[in-house]
Amino acid sequence: MGGRFITLEGGEGAGKTTQARLLAEAIRAAGLEAVETREPGGEAGAEAIRGLLVTGAPGRWEPLAETLLHYAARVQHVARVIRPALERGAWVVSDRFADSTAVYQGDGQGVEAAAIAAIHRATLGDVAPDLTLILDLPVEQGLARAAARSARNRYERFDHAFHARIREGFLRRAASEPKRCVVIDAARPAEAVAAAIRAAVAERLGLVLPAAA
Amino acid sequence: MGGRFITLEGGEGAGKTTQARLLAEAIRAAGLEAVETREPGGEAGAEAIRGLLVTGAPGRWEPLAETLLHYAARVQHVARVIRPALERGAWVVSDRFADSTAVYQGDGQGVEAAAIAAIHRATLGDVAPDLTLILDLPVEQGLARAAARSARNRYERFDHAFHARIREGFLRRAASEPKRCVVIDAARPAEAVAAAIRAAVAERLGLVLPAAA
Ligand SMILES: Nc1ncnc2c1ncn2[C@@H]1O[C@H](COP(=O)(O)OP(=O)(O)OP(=O)(O)O)[C@@H](O)[C@H]1O
Ligand SMILES: Nc1ncnc2c1ncn2[C@@H]1O[C@H](COP(=O)(O)OP(=O)(O)OP(=O)(O)O)[C@@H](O)[C@H]1O
Ligand SMILES: [Mg+2]
Ligand SMILES: [Mg+2]
Repeated sequence: MGGRFITLEGGEGAGKTTQARLLAEAIRAAGLEAVETREPGGEAGAEAIRGLLVTGAPGRWEPLAETLLHYAARVQHVARVIRPALERGAWVVSDRFADSTAVYQGDGQGVEAAAIAAIHRATLGDVAPDLTLILDLPVEQGLARAAARSARNRYERFDHAFHARIREGFLRRAASEPKRCVVIDAARPAEAVAAAIRAAVAERLGLVLPAAA
Repeated sequence: MGGRFITLEGGEGAGKTTQARLLAEAIRAAGLEAVETREPGGEAGAEAIRGLLVTGAPGRWEPLAETLLHYAARVQHVARVIRPALERGAWVVSDRFADSTAVYQGDGQGVEAAAIAAIHRATLGDVAPDLTLILDLPVEQGLARAAARSARNRYERFDHAFHARIREGFLRRAASEPKRCVVIDAARPAEAVAAAIRAAVAERLGLVLPAAA
């Protein structure tokens, strides 16, 4: 069976990193190669760009400049990590991808959807996830989880209204692309979320994954 | 008289930085406000992006990622420095601008002109130089000047064929936009180049500048 490209999306503290790890482990336990990666980042140059994006004051970047930085990192990540992995038949699990830019810079920071779409078309070509898992939970719950874990990064310092727009933006995006996206209730214990993700992978991509040992 | 936006373009070591300084000084000597700035850079975030672009191996960035990084820096520079300066009536003299991306990433690194144009349209809106001075001189002469000045930056480490495409690219661009661009023979002493630039500013923008004291 050839590889597939799966992305995990959602607001701060939704559990994306936790679930990316569990999903990659389950794919490996099924005997397949899994590449676990993240955005912004996942490649040396892209990680340097990440450093510019996740540090500093919320107002450090013009929203349009921020959009271009995310796409610069994404071009590196796709060309040097994601595309080669898919070409050799690996499964790729990415903690965030293009939906995060559409939602954070579009719905969150007010960049016109048409501008983001034009940049996407000019740079990303035909690479798109086979399946996108949108981890949904109340804003306060996500921010509390993230705060308990580590110091607040730049996006966590945006205001509450911003994070509320993010949550709505992801749900709208899922509704508009129902073939690619599955909304996962992320307000449950991690193993229940992981089971819902395995069910989605089985239903949408036909891969039955073992539960964690 | 309202401000104007003037850009200096050309290959490595052509004398852009030297002439930007002399031109800004002449504008000030004429009693006008001059903002001397540069790309990539000219603003805090843009200078951080510059750090990613001018250091490291030539192959560090995918050409398309590099294009996006230059435009991210440019969006910051236009929004936070160039546009406010023009709005208060200052003259802006920029050492490089969008023509450098079209030529370096397009002609030099092979990014499709249509992709660069799409990114430009989606991000830059209606800001364009009133006058672009293209400093032209043989590749070897420019690289020798640059090498005598300082350690080779990332672009100076690209091969000779790259720099030859840059020179041709700038000349083609000047020929295709003759109302905006003036080619200046930069293989002369700095004061002769400065005099040719003052003549172009007088002829194209109607501003008569004093010769340096
Ligand atoms: N289902 C869960 N229930 C409770 N806590 C969880 C759950 N999933 C993850 N956590 C914890 O919440 C915190 C945030 O989880 P994680 O880092 O996976 O989220 P994230 O979506 O990647 O966050 P960020 O957007 O900040 O990268 C971590 O401390 C993690 O251990
Ligand atoms: N007309 C000239 N004749 C001889 N040397 C010059 C002339 N103009 C500038 N130089 C010298 O050549 C070197 C490069 O000039 P400058 O830094 O102005 O070029 P540049 O186009 O800005 O280069 P770069 O592309 O590397 O930024 C400097 O040492 C400068 O003093
Ligand atoms: Mg995470
Ligand atoms: Mg210079």
